[in-house]
Amino acid sequence: MPIPWANSTGGDGAAGVDLHLEAVPGAGGLRRGLTDALRDAVRTGRLAPDTRLPSSRTLAADLGIARNTVAEAYADLVAEGWLTARQGSGTWVAARAVGVPGGAAGAPGAATPPRAPGPPVHNLVPGTPDLTTFPRAEWLRAARRALAAAPHDAFGYGDPRGRPELRAALAGYLARARGVRADPERIVVTAGFAGALRLLGALLRARGARTVAVESYGLDVHRRLLDDAGLTTRPLPYDELGTDTRPLTDERAVLLTPAHQFPMGAPLHPDRRAAVVEWARRGGGLVLEDDYDGEFRYDRQPVGALQGLDPEHVVHLGTASKALAPGLRLGWMVVPERLVGEVLAVLGAGDACGVLDQLTLAEFIGSGAYDRHVRAARLRYRRRRDALVGAVGERVRVLGVAAGLHAVLCLPEGSERAVLQAAAWQRLALHGLAFHRHPLASGPVPDALVVGYGTPTDRGWAGALEALCRVLP
Amino acid sequence: MPIPWANSTGGDGAAGVDLHLEAVPGAGGLRRGLTDALRDAVRTGRLAPDTRLPSSRTLAADLGIARNTVAEAYADLVAEGWLTARQGSGTWVAARAVGVPGGAAGAPGAATPPRAPGPPVHNLVPGTPDLTTFPRAEWLRAARRALAAAPHDAFGYGDPRGRPELRAALAGYLARARGVRADPERIVVTAGFAGALRLLGALLRARGARTVAVESYGLDVHRRLLDDAGLTTRPLPYDELGTDTRPLTDERAVLLTPAHQFPMGAPLHPDRRAAVVEWARRGGGLVLEDDYDGEFRYDRQPVGALQGLDPEHVVHLGTASKALAPGLRLGWMVVPERLVGEVLAVLGAGDACGVLDQLTLAEFIGSGAYDRHVRAARLRYRRRRDALVGAVGERVRVLGVAAGLHAVLCLPEGSERAVLQAAAWQRLALHGLAFHRHPLASGPVPDALVVGYGTPTDRGWAGALEALCRVLP
Repeated sequence: MPIPWANSTGGDGAAGVDLHLEAVPGAGGLRRGLTDALRDAVRTGRLAPDTRLPSSRTLAADLGIARNTVAEAYADLVAEGWLTARQGSGTWVAARAVGVPGGAAGAPGAATPPRAPGPPVHNLVPGTPDLTTFPRAEWLRAARRALAAAPHDAFGYGDPRGRPELRAALAGYLARARGVRADPERIVVTAGFAGALRLLGALLRARGARTVAVESYGLDVHRRLLDDAGLTTRPLPYDELGTDTRPLTDERAVLLTPAHQFPMGAPLHPDRRAAVVEWARRGGGLVLEDDYDGEFRYDRQPVGALQGLDPEHVVHLGTASKALAPGLRLGWMVVPERLVGEVLAVLGAGDACGVLDQLTLAEFIGSGAYDRHVRAARLRYRRRRDALVGAVGERVRVLGVAAGLHAVLCLPEGSERAVLQAAAWQRLALHGLAFHRHPLASGPVPDALVVGYGTPTDRGWAGALEALCRVLP
Repeated sequence: MPIPWANSTGGDGAAGVDLHLEAVPGAGGLRRGLTDALRDAVRTGRLAPDTRLPSSRTLAADLGIARNTVAEAYADLVAEGWLTARQGSGTWVAARAVGVPGGAAGAPGAATPPRAPGPPVHNLVPGTPDLTTFPRAEWLRAARRALAAAPHDAFGYGDPRGRPELRAALAGYLARARGVRADPERIVVTAGFAGALRLLGALLRARGARTVAVESYGLDVHRRLLDDAGLTTRPLPYDELGTDTRPLTDERAVLLTPAHQFPMGAPLHPDRRAAVVEWARRGGGLVLEDDYDGEFRYDRQPVGALQGLDPEHVVHLGTASKALAPGLRLGWMVVPERLVGEVLAVLGAGDACGVLDQLTLAEFIGSGAYDRHVRAARLRYRRRRDALVGAVGERVRVLGVAAGLHAVLCLPEGSERAVLQAAAWQRLALHGLAFHRHPLASGPVPDALVVGYGTPTDRGWAGALEALCRVLP
């Protein structure tokens, strides 16, 4: 039967490709039949690299078979390396190219398994800092001091908002570094940005919200978190001033990256900043400010937090994932005073984070180690940005270079997919801009690459940059 | 208007008391009026200690006012100490007695604030181990080794099931200590037991479940987690053989504490163990085995995990909260192989735990420090149990003393509430059995205390035991 597949590497994320999939129960049963059919589809190129597969629920419904069977087939193919399970965003065709490059790739019905590139050795996927720079020794020192100073009751269940030591340290840091108007009573420590967005999804749903406005470009894992809370996301248009919030009407909330649009890289224009706050005030709406990499700005002062304009209508969201490491799973939000009670009402025992990391981060911030680490990281990533612009700036237009850990490289119309396939053959993991586009976004669909220059190690950076240069048109 | 309040200290949790609440908007507005009315109700005893308040949503709907107003009034009264916000289980009247003991308490309309006991100085609420015994030095040593040995990619987003080092350590430990048939691929590290139950709630809901069978006695925070997943809980009867699973029919899952019923303290009878596994096999149901304190058994070998009987129909759930500390927020579950794919499908980025604590716990288990710590703790709590039984065993019947960190003290019919009030005057925090009874449970309603003898420090234990003796009939 033909099944529409959302293909993330196609120009338009909403466009689907139909795939004829025959899961015939053979000697090995339905599971084996489905596994074989999917493997064939990947091997022959009918399912392209970086294609997101439908959820096991959806595919099971489409095929009229048990969801377990689909989940097991997916798991088999993940184990075999044909598919990958990405945290929080479903199952994907592995990022290896198929078929012979420029040749039979994509031709249906190829009988023999074509040569395929090996797994990536270079990684320019955005979202992760250089993990080799995690300050292990300083962190351990902070942990020692934190463990020695912790009151006994710190080891208990405690305040669902998180440890008071960390909330106090964050209040000071966010005021100083990001212009956030914070006090510890309104800060909630969360399991990364994702933990915060899940809580806000539950809160909005409890308030009766059905729809949340989001940007045309963003992370699909964020959309999924809102989905899971029972909320529909509606994309706002994007133009040269950033996300256009004028179409906002009676939505209860809008999720934005005002300091540094992800992934486009521009800060929200001051007029737009003022306008979205004005919208929130008028109708009691809520602006969710995703300040994922606000500390990393290179050529001038960081753009201050939007929350500073109106702390009663903006929820400020931050994370230690970019400045330190995603593995810490520590994020925070600063909520309006009027919402503290509602946040407490949706906070459950399963939302709390380990206290030892919280106490250690408080100590790390309080001792100045956090600032020192961010300064060093800023210098490192600025050098990489300079190298990137120097290497590719004459061949392609580069956007969003003033800040952050990634940049957008504009490509000739229609070439994004071919460049990604070429990248796979260079064993370079990379995202196209289409991957980050909301399926319902309107307007032109530019071809571009999103290059995460923070991701490689110092040793791996030069090789990754060379591989990138080899695949640019 | 009269509002029904679920009163947890009444004999039957489902019985409500009507409260005439007049939230008249005065000079300070509605919020002030509601705050004053609630404060008066607590002060005069119309709202009894340990009464659970309706959610702000419910009360707002009942009163026809904004939910924010209710949430703010609750927050004001929490700040003043009249109410307490319990993690994951809503807002409660603080556990202080009201009025004059034995006298005017509960008489409505008392004009002047009566004398009230101060905050508790003794704590026998079950669920928390002695927090002063957290092995800080050993934990730091393990953290140092873990930090030194961690591969760089440990600091990234990683496997949503948790770090492989910890899953491998748990597989070995659970097989050895609890008879669990585990392999690392089927283990998921979670934010405590609550994190695991939330995931299972989402999984069951995705499978189409509407109802989960639970025990007549248990933790209301667990019921709430299932509630939040959109599942109704239906209590099974309890008798001298433990929870009676014979009424199970077409439920998709049952949540049990087979090794040590919480809070009643008995292990599930072997016939019942076999029967519930048989039920699960017959209909494809799932037994959720909450093994919250399986390591703590004093007089003979621990009761093995139910999961050992049938790993494909039992999900084994464990936690570091009792053996180490709740503040670590580390739990785990061992899922049937047939469900691994479905678990991966519901695992989101917000469910992951900090990797450093995971790596440290793996090191702690692997080095033998975990076993040593559990042995020392077992000895400590066994001594306390002996002291408890020695002190009260001739005055009241004591149940559930063979294992765990708490015991049940049977009280004369109708006396539970009075004993709890007396305890408040002894500044002793304590739960009655009614607090742990499912609102829909049927059958006799025994009066009893649930005494958490693991909670006090070694220094505080004697004083807590004396205070307990003073309030027993």
